[in-house]
Amino acid sequence: MIAALTLPVVLPARDREVTLRRAGEADLRAVVDLLADDPVSAARGDRASAEDEPLYRAALLEVLADPSNDLLVAEVDGDVVGTLQLTRIPGMARRGSARLLVEAVRVRSTLRSAGIGTALMRWVTDLAAPATGSSLVQLTSDNARADAHRFYERLGFAGSHRGFKYAVPSRPTSG
Amino acid sequence: MIAALTLPVVLPARDREVTLRRAGEADLRAVVDLLADDPVSAARGDRASAEDEPLYRAALLEVLADPSNDLLVAEVDGDVVGTLQLTRIPGMARRGSARLLVEAVRVRSTLRSAGIGTALMRWVTDLAAPATGSSLVQLTSDNARADAHRFYERLGFAGSHRGFKYAVPSRPTSG
Repeated sequence: MIAALTLPVVLPARDREVTLRRAGEADLRAVVDLLADDPVSAARGDRASAEDEPLYRAALLEVLADPSNDLLVAEVDGDVVGTLQLTRIPGMARRGSARLLVEAVRVRSTLRSAGIGTALMRWVTDLAAPATGSSLVQLTSDNARADAHRFYERLGFAGSHRGFKYAVPSRPTSG
Repeated sequence: MIAALTLPVVLPARDREVTLRRAGEADLRAVVDLLADDPVSAARGDRASAEDEPLYRAALLEVLADPSNDLLVAEVDGDVVGTLQLTRIPGMARRGSARLLVEAVRVRSTLRSAGIGTALMRWVTDLAAPATGSSLVQLTSDNARADAHRFYERLGFAGSHRGFKYAVPSRPTSG
């Protein structure tokens, strides 16, 4: 967890309230289901299958224990409907600025366009970034997500960069 | 520093050898000069001015003290000619994969096209990523850097994403 973030917090989102809080181990199922609920993630292998649960659990515990990372969940009426991961990265560029990387922004597909993503991202830019001393918030979004690109532009993000990914070949296990 | 990385390491780069090692406080000047040597960075305010030195020094010390970050310098004949920052990020996506984020790839402008960048990036994809248990290497590159985009594609990176940045407004200081 990133100690500088004050959580939980209640955020107004159009016609409802959203509670943003840190994920706990009990949220494992909900977080994995949100990943699999997204066609782009599902195509990358995130299908919420039972045999992958140990991998997801280990990853969740590692994120929660890391002082530079936080995995957050958004609740509406006691239901987990969204997630968001933040990573604070110190660096030399831009006169020694820290930056806040946003990964894994997910809102349940049945609740899209309800202002929940906007509420979460405004909290990131307006509260989380200053609280962590970050002068830049950055994220990448798959070229296929045209709606997401417009969403980030409306929030004041500039699509000024190209995002490159290299999939590390998995090594054959011996024996 | 990221303890899982074995450094220093000597890498072949076409007609010379490059030593890749962790930066130390004594490298501050060289690292800041490399930033200012790059027109895109210089346009963002990285001009290596003396008054910014405390900001850069604090950032360098923070990166060096962080167990998820490493700032590396590349040396040729005892001269610092390049830099690279790595951040290891645990996460839930892609079946609980960690990823390795690359920032601040810089090679001295007079030594471009000498294979140094290639040597550094191949070390990242082929050695640093497996050593840190990362199944993905990712970076963003300014839309203006067409040469860099071709460089990353040649190394096997896919430009599959759009990179969004949000500059956090600096808050007025009181009094």
